[in-house]
Amino acid sequence: MPSWIDGRPAELLSVRDRGLAYGDGLFETIAVSGGKSALLERHLARLADGCARLQIALDLALVRAELLAFSGELGDGVAKLIVTRGDGLRGYAPPSPSQSRRILQGSAKPVYPHEHAERGVRLFPCVTRLAEQPVLAGLKHLNRLEQVLARVEWQDAEHAEGLMLDTAGRVVEGVYSNLFLATGGVLQTPELSRCGVAGVMRAELLAQAGRRGLACTVRDISLADLLAADEVFLCNSLYGVWPVRALQGHDWPVGPLTRKLQAIARDLLDC
Amino acid sequence: MPSWIDGRPAELLSVRDRGLAYGDGLFETIAVSGGKSALLERHLARLADGCARLQIALDLALVRAELLAFSGELGDGVAKLIVTRGDGLRGYAPPSPSQSRRILQGSAKPVYPHEHAERGVRLFPCVTRLAEQPVLAGLKHLNRLEQVLARVEWQDAEHAEGLMLDTAGRVVEGVYSNLFLATGGVLQTPELSRCGVAGVMRAELLAQAGRRGLACTVRDISLADLLAADEVFLCNSLYGVWPVRALQGHDWPVGPLTRKLQAIARDLLDC
Repeated sequence: MPSWIDGRPAELLSVRDRGLAYGDGLFETIAVSGGKSALLERHLARLADGCARLQIALDLALVRAELLAFSGELGDGVAKLIVTRGDGLRGYAPPSPSQSRRILQGSAKPVYPHEHAERGVRLFPCVTRLAEQPVLAGLKHLNRLEQVLARVEWQDAEHAEGLMLDTAGRVVEGVYSNLFLATGGVLQTPELSRCGVAGVMRAELLAQAGRRGLACTVRDISLADLLAADEVFLCNSLYGVWPVRALQGHDWPVGPLTRKLQAIARDLLDC
Repeated sequence: MPSWIDGRPAELLSVRDRGLAYGDGLFETIAVSGGKSALLERHLARLADGCARLQIALDLALVRAELLAFSGELGDGVAKLIVTRGDGLRGYAPPSPSQSRRILQGSAKPVYPHEHAERGVRLFPCVTRLAEQPVLAGLKHLNRLEQVLARVEWQDAEHAEGLMLDTAGRVVEGVYSNLFLATGGVLQTPELSRCGVAGVMRAELLAQAGRRGLACTVRDISLADLLAADEVFLCNSLYGVWPVRALQGHDWPVGPLTRKLQAIARDLLDC
């Protein structure tokens, strides 16, 4: 599987990279089919937003060109793009000027059981909570210890994903997915201004739902809201949409809004 | 300056290291003088605690041996030790078994103006707050975007350090230091069970103060407590103790407890 650093094949990285030292960077995980990146413009837009918020200078045209070339070489799989603030000296202050670094890693498409998409998945109730940090909320940055700790909470194949709450007990997301509910015909997904990753599939589904005239709100969601929902589903930019069928003793049916959004996601990923 | 990976000289790291991908690891910053690591056992104890909490397997005897050898080669400077969960596949779940990785980086001792230690420093009031995350609190882990964002808030040489509060407004620490106050002859330092880094110099000063019969408490500290303090000082494992002389319009004198702890820190760093 290919691996590039700053546009050239490379498997090894400077040990002084601030991505390693401080998680000082961002990443995107992009589905690639037939040499094409799915949701490319959304990934680039989120990356640009993240770089602006972290004050990392990045040549976006160059990143786009590299992604296109890398995806062509990869063919089918997953392209993971990491952007770091580049090498640093010791200490938190970035060197001035900093030279950001682009890392591309190819991997095979993950193979999930067919029934995740068809029958739905069971959520593991993660004990690890998401801290409220508005200045980092929404970003797909490299500080991901919360997700690592949440993901090691379960090993069984019974649970395909875990549910993460914030420290105040609000429902936020899955460990590697965003979450939607449908209640009374209205789609809802958690507000991500305190914590959570604003996924590109979530953004695209919100936009597509809006375009189709489906009612959709972004708001704080409690565990009670979740349990009272008619339908629950997860999404990300690799698998599309998975219905959620159970959390501990609670069950949800797979409903029509879930199937509608699932079909939209399928079209988006068959790029 | 030397750089070792897993005990051997190396400047380049696998691009699949989970330290880069997720900040999935820990670090220690160790003062080295005359080939000897200062506060070695405290650094190793904190690292062992961190590895236990993050469930990273580590051969501590091997780390100690490598640090001793590395410090001998470095002579005088700073040894930064990074331990990561090692290489990973894509996804948050660690590979099983994981093979943790040890990275040692040497650098020159930072040169600070003599007056930081003598006259004291002015604190920059950082706007970036520390999120409350008990499962990570106290650890010197690699998820350090909060510190990076706080450190880029000021560039002037007028401020040697920044003051960080948590999202609830409590006083926690400096960007790269711990903080103590003295009020009515009692030393106090913030409780770090919600956020913050439990520094080895802080731990050693607490222990030494206790041994000398100095009253010392670890508790939540408000901005009002800080402003009302008779003395304020910072510490870390490289510079020892710096008195704090000012924060915005407020001034503190450099007092006798600060000087006492500063002398203790000096002895510890002249190892």
